[in-house]
Amino acid sequence: MEITYADNNATTRVAPEVLEALLPYLQDDYFNPSSMYEAARSAAAAVDAARRSLARNLGGVAPREILFTSCATESNNTAILGCAKARPERRHIITTRVEHPAVLTVCQALEREGYELSWIGVDRSGRIDVGQYVRALRPDTLLVTVMHANNETGVIFPIEQLSRLAKETDPEILFHTDATQTAGKLPLDLKRALPHVDLLSFSGHKIHAPKGIGALFIRRGTPCKPLLLGGHQEEGRRGGTENVAFVVGLARALDVAAAHHEEEARRITALRDRLEAALLERIPFARVNGAGAERLGNTLNLSCHFIEGEGMLYQLSAHGICASSGSACTSGSLEPSHVLKAMGVPFTAMHGSVRFSFSRYNSERDVERITEVFPGIVASLRRLSPYWDQKLDRPRDEALAMLEQGDAVDSP
Amino acid sequence: MEITYADNNATTRVAPEVLEALLPYLQDDYFNPSSMYEAARSAAAAVDAARRSLARNLGGVAPREILFTSCATESNNTAILGCAKARPERRHIITTRVEHPAVLTVCQALEREGYELSWIGVDRSGRIDVGQYVRALRPDTLLVTVMHANNETGVIFPIEQLSRLAKETDPEILFHTDATQTAGKLPLDLKRALPHVDLLSFSGHKIHAPKGIGALFIRRGTPCKPLLLGGHQEEGRRGGTENVAFVVGLARALDVAAAHHEEEARRITALRDRLEAALLERIPFARVNGAGAERLGNTLNLSCHFIEGEGMLYQLSAHGICASSGSACTSGSLEPSHVLKAMGVPFTAMHGSVRFSFSRYNSERDVERITEVFPGIVASLRRLSPYWDQKLDRPRDEALAMLEQGDAVDSP
Repeated sequence: MEITYADNNATTRVAPEVLEALLPYLQDDYFNPSSMYEAARSAAAAVDAARRSLARNLGGVAPREILFTSCATESNNTAILGCAKARPERRHIITTRVEHPAVLTVCQALEREGYELSWIGVDRSGRIDVGQYVRALRPDTLLVTVMHANNETGVIFPIEQLSRLAKETDPEILFHTDATQTAGKLPLDLKRALPHVDLLSFSGHKIHAPKGIGALFIRRGTPCKPLLLGGHQEEGRRGGTENVAFVVGLARALDVAAAHHEEEARRITALRDRLEAALLERIPFARVNGAGAERLGNTLNLSCHFIEGEGMLYQLSAHGICASSGSACTSGSLEPSHVLKAMGVPFTAMHGSVRFSFSRYNSERDVERITEVFPGIVASLRRLSPYWDQKLDRPRDEALAMLEQGDAVDSP
Repeated sequence: MEITYADNNATTRVAPEVLEALLPYLQDDYFNPSSMYEAARSAAAAVDAARRSLARNLGGVAPREILFTSCATESNNTAILGCAKARPERRHIITTRVEHPAVLTVCQALEREGYELSWIGVDRSGRIDVGQYVRALRPDTLLVTVMHANNETGVIFPIEQLSRLAKETDPEILFHTDATQTAGKLPLDLKRALPHVDLLSFSGHKIHAPKGIGALFIRRGTPCKPLLLGGHQEEGRRGGTENVAFVVGLARALDVAAAHHEEEARRITALRDRLEAALLERIPFARVNGAGAERLGNTLNLSCHFIEGEGMLYQLSAHGICASSGSACTSGSLEPSHVLKAMGVPFTAMHGSVRFSFSRYNSERDVERITEVFPGIVASLRRLSPYWDQKLDRPRDEALAMLEQGDAVDSP
């Protein structure tokens, strides 16, 4: 069966040039980069070169400001817990209600340990409540951790502004951003555009490198203790023999993405826009979650009133179309998305959300297939739905307005 | 130049059958195993199968007792910190003076936080002081963490006996072992032979799988909290998208090792024994660190009185021979090995230690090359050494006895 992969916010295909770059380190160049002998020099040099390449693609920061980790989850855990350990005298953390579980659960754990957390909300479009954020900032705030773009809706947060506001309140407030969804998609210039961001996380497998590798930028002078204790690797900031092959792959992936991201972003955004318009035209009572906000050009989060996301995904899968509801990291749970809940998405729409997310491997053909298949799936599921009220068979604008005014489930 | 790789305790060549098994997951089977669609089933099934395979090769434990991590360092950190977090009411930990940095530094960090640590010593052969161990065990001990075999000397600790003694003192004492050097080399039967071991760590890259993957066995019912918080992966015990390719590679590597370890262990031990005998015959004033203790058959740690390890390694490297002094995780520091220090190796020998470690890819040819090259290196370095005293030109046994009675540096 033809596969249409439209779940690139969950994971991506490893790029052939990435595989080609990393493969030698799974073959004859298997040496431990910490070893002193000549034969191991090329492995050590490969790790160094990868670090320099990443540093260059993050706006020309210093290579030693880059730490390699095993995934974005480890990067996020290291950033948040590392800052908390380094600054035990500060006990106030600011985050949002819509973070990825790798940030959310760490913040919840710290809250249980007695840290004071400020959970910033978002509006119906998914935009962060900047007013609430500013009121939450305090001179004794330890850390702000706010994602760069949301994995479910693609809504982009104004990290430049938020980090500047934090430093204006107190230069010692640390600012971390989970850039897992923006690395390789948006330019990340940590020197000029984002000078107030102290820590930034991302992973390889969202940018066509393999699963099992991540990075954490830690700006020079930022107090952040290691999470993994062990050998002297990564200048003592992360024990464990370096995953040479995937370190090389990560650097190559970001390099390829950076070289093309303007033209690719334009092309991918056009695909997404065409898909969005086509689906809205063909599916009555659908809403784009995050519409109205600045969004990543690759993401379309669509809610169809009165049906379950799971049913739609199952039928899409039967047609070889890969999409998701919520994040892969929370899938398997029947809970509605914490992100849509925080946005106040109406109850009848919240369970019926599907996320399509594109990458540079998507094409017009994928838009066509989804457009051909998906509206029919929605229609057939609605015919079976006990909630689908034929009374809604009224003028579209009127009915949608009625649904949108329906009960939103309160955020937790 | 011909490379003679004799540093397999530092890292190993990825086996071709391992690369073959993992490669599909870096190519077309790139899906996220948490995804619900049909296309992702094979990735999810591969992770499941790998977990079952590992469980089978660890004596038929339950697959859900296996947790995949990014390396042995992460496994060791998770085990020790996870038990400490799960049992905050207990504050006493027992370990040895010769653990790998991934255990040592975690224990030192806990000691600084106020935990009470009992540091068990070893004798001149590297054998653990069982008497001191038994005296250290207390009904309120939280955790024992003792490595299965030492990475520098290959000395094997009696884990079965030590874990039994812990449980006899109090069944609630948790027992962890770092089996990074024994997995794939010794049978690890966690059901029959090692029923009192609660947690066991190892990594892929010591057993011909890639760097960047590890495992942690956590016996059912063992209180151990997660280190990496995030998504629901690994049943909530380790957030982060699974490194599908390397998980598959790790399982394949252990499977290959387990299938052949008796015959390979015999062959490798014979190679090591021949090398050991040949070098002792050709190099005056050399000692085998760990001689007299039960040792891994692949490891030879040789100290040559009056010369520096670094000089020997440099000259070996110039001949394409890869060996190490101490562990790769502590290399780069000029400190003498904490393991040899703890063993009371005489000062004039401690700095002159070299470790040769074999794997199934070593052959008679490697023994010959090292035997041809190494004695000459030692002789030439000694001619340059200011410590090399020609007065030692006396009957060998007499001179060695004199050196062995020399000052040992005290353990820290």
